[in-house]
Amino acid sequence: MVSVTIEPSAGRTSAPAPTPSPEILKRTALEEAMSPTSPSVTFPASEPLLLDCGKVLGPFTVAYETAGTLNADKSNAILLCHALTMDQYFFRNSPVTGKPGWWLDMIGPGKPIDTDRFFVICPNILGGCMGSTGPVSINPATGTHYGLDFPVITIRDMVRAQGRLIDHLGIEKLFAVIGGSMGGMQVLEWAAYFGDRLHCAIPIATAAWHSAQNIAFHEVGRQAVMADPEWMDGRYLFNERVPRRGLAVARMAAHITYLSEAALHAKFGRNLQDRDFRTFSFNADFQVESYLRHQGSTFVDRFDANSYLYITRAMDYFDLAAEFDGVLANAFRGTRTRFCVVSFTSDWLYPTHESRKIVQALNAVAANVSFVEIESDKGHDAFLLEEPVFFQTVAGFINSAASRLGIGAARSST
Amino acid sequence: MVSVTIEPSAGRTSAPAPTPSPEILKRTALEEAMSPTSPSVTFPASEPLLLDCGKVLGPFTVAYETAGTLNADKSNAILLCHALTMDQYFFRNSPVTGKPGWWLDMIGPGKPIDTDRFFVICPNILGGCMGSTGPVSINPATGTHYGLDFPVITIRDMVRAQGRLIDHLGIEKLFAVIGGSMGGMQVLEWAAYFGDRLHCAIPIATAAWHSAQNIAFHEVGRQAVMADPEWMDGRYLFNERVPRRGLAVARMAAHITYLSEAALHAKFGRNLQDRDFRTFSFNADFQVESYLRHQGSTFVDRFDANSYLYITRAMDYFDLAAEFDGVLANAFRGTRTRFCVVSFTSDWLYPTHESRKIVQALNAVAANVSFVEIESDKGHDAFLLEEPVFFQTVAGFINSAASRLGIGAARSST
Repeated sequence: MVSVTIEPSAGRTSAPAPTPSPEILKRTALEEAMSPTSPSVTFPASEPLLLDCGKVLGPFTVAYETAGTLNADKSNAILLCHALTMDQYFFRNSPVTGKPGWWLDMIGPGKPIDTDRFFVICPNILGGCMGSTGPVSINPATGTHYGLDFPVITIRDMVRAQGRLIDHLGIEKLFAVIGGSMGGMQVLEWAAYFGDRLHCAIPIATAAWHSAQNIAFHEVGRQAVMADPEWMDGRYLFNERVPRRGLAVARMAAHITYLSEAALHAKFGRNLQDRDFRTFSFNADFQVESYLRHQGSTFVDRFDANSYLYITRAMDYFDLAAEFDGVLANAFRGTRTRFCVVSFTSDWLYPTHESRKIVQALNAVAANVSFVEIESDKGHDAFLLEEPVFFQTVAGFINSAASRLGIGAARSST
Repeated sequence: MVSVTIEPSAGRTSAPAPTPSPEILKRTALEEAMSPTSPSVTFPASEPLLLDCGKVLGPFTVAYETAGTLNADKSNAILLCHALTMDQYFFRNSPVTGKPGWWLDMIGPGKPIDTDRFFVICPNILGGCMGSTGPVSINPATGTHYGLDFPVITIRDMVRAQGRLIDHLGIEKLFAVIGGSMGGMQVLEWAAYFGDRLHCAIPIATAAWHSAQNIAFHEVGRQAVMADPEWMDGRYLFNERVPRRGLAVARMAAHITYLSEAALHAKFGRNLQDRDFRTFSFNADFQVESYLRHQGSTFVDRFDANSYLYITRAMDYFDLAAEFDGVLANAFRGTRTRFCVVSFTSDWLYPTHESRKIVQALNAVAANVSFVEIESDKGHDAFLLEEPVFFQTVAGFINSAASRLGIGAARSST
């Protein structure tokens, strides 16, 4: 177990690590959580974060990755908010899995979000486990992992921490904030509370609240983790244990919700795995079983079980209308932000009718909003996959907004 | 632990138990599995069941309940096939939970299936845990519970066992076979293999195969059970243990799939449970969490974990077309059975398009089929709930078929 003492030092930025060679790529998730290879900034105990629960968190660290170059007037910055189990490695390879960045299809030179024009920043969320402060981090009060002593945070708390990073980078106003799923919830919080700090908001495959069904699926996942005796009431890291089986089951259940019935059918159907006949046993006869087991077991190697509890809880607590007297439109009253709301037809986790509610609230306050429902059979995960119409939508919106705002030069004109 | 030696005796029928008084109602699930309070028939080892897996099962017991009276020419019998976690107690109170019969809304004097006219038989399925032979039963080869030595069975095997019960009761031809969900799968098997033994088939909220998504949900449930150390590789009963937490998680995940998003929203929304504010903890803040936890914990008291594995496996293996050279219509070629296929609009576990496939196959062989999609926001569980149009549909079909076949006297004419 790697133990790192976090030195309180005002706005200390670690030097960006050079791209690691393949030999040293594979760090354990715990090593990465304690000491990220990505840049990070630690805010001292004297500049803590005041959380929705009323507690104060400090010192705290925000680990982040960037791509592209911040221009001289700092007007070309795009904040990318990641989803539940993602992290800051949207561009570079993950130091834990060695896999390519998770949004390379969307972001890069000449991509819909063109890093020749824009500077993209993706912080690991508060409560995460890839270097930003979370339950794996050292609790200064005890000198060991927070575990369940970590305060229960909210989506708004995550956004507060991101705001501090943006301050630290000296960026007054973001060109855009973009994110899918839980990332989209963060986008909505940014627009609601820091409307004067962003020109554009792009919430994708998301909702302004977590529905009863979504809370239900998360609760199943949490109960699966907590049912694992290796979880040890959240104190597994103190005992050098990991609730592997419980977390794997949680991931399996969640993973089904990320895909559509049609996608599962197209991908696996009832195909058997490496066999011609049913074995009349509880082996993974079907490909879909084998796939899910694989999803579960690989997830455990890259994610912290307590982080999973805290982040799902933050999502369940999310209800933007409730923060504004029960009227969602109030969250956006007077907004000058341009919105691009995107949903996918086969997403049953955050279905189109949830995006429509956001659009209706924005319309009610005469906000500048475009709404696109993308035809896709890939389910919720469509926002992470090859979806040409989706890419065109985001590129079109960004290019048009940048052109109107006179931000960045269009690639075609360079 | 109650241990019962099953005496092999050809077609022995135990006397129907008198309706137990409330004091003795609450038997443990294990007691009921080993020695049911309902009638049962045990077929001796000399008359075993040949299973799809190639193994032979004997002796074996079928526990069942009945309502109504079998008429003199034995023409008024309706076989009721139950779903995954149901049992034979469709009419009388469950001896384990004390709860009323699970289909009292549908079956009884003057109800859509009128017990003044029809004799309804509901066997506990093979592999179940309410008295029919399953993994809890005593393996004659070892003298103790089968556990994982119980053979992996199929829906067709369940139907084979039901056929033996019907033989035993001296019924040549059933007036109807009816069932929802997994019960509907049994109905389809009856129609496919024993078409000359039933006049009518009523498959409800079901499918002719288990989809990839449905296999996936079942696999999550099985993995949750198997991840529980108390499962002990299936040998928990030998050690007087129960994998409570794993089975509860399995039930929670499954339960979500039985309801629609709309039903969960209408029933719970984001309402908090006995509190005015979020507790910023992992307590069951939301009513839907509390409800699911309750569903999980009560299920464990009435159901056997290994039975859950075996029955879900049987459902996953179900693919009627595959049994007929990949052409579903072949399963019904030449059929003279009248079919009434029913689906519910908000059922996403067995959606209407699965019922349509059954109807298309029946149409392809010019079968007599009526198909009704019932408008309901209650999800898959709608077939167990108060749905007037559904009741009218079943009553209308049964009355019309009975009238054409000259079976039973219409209640209005008595």
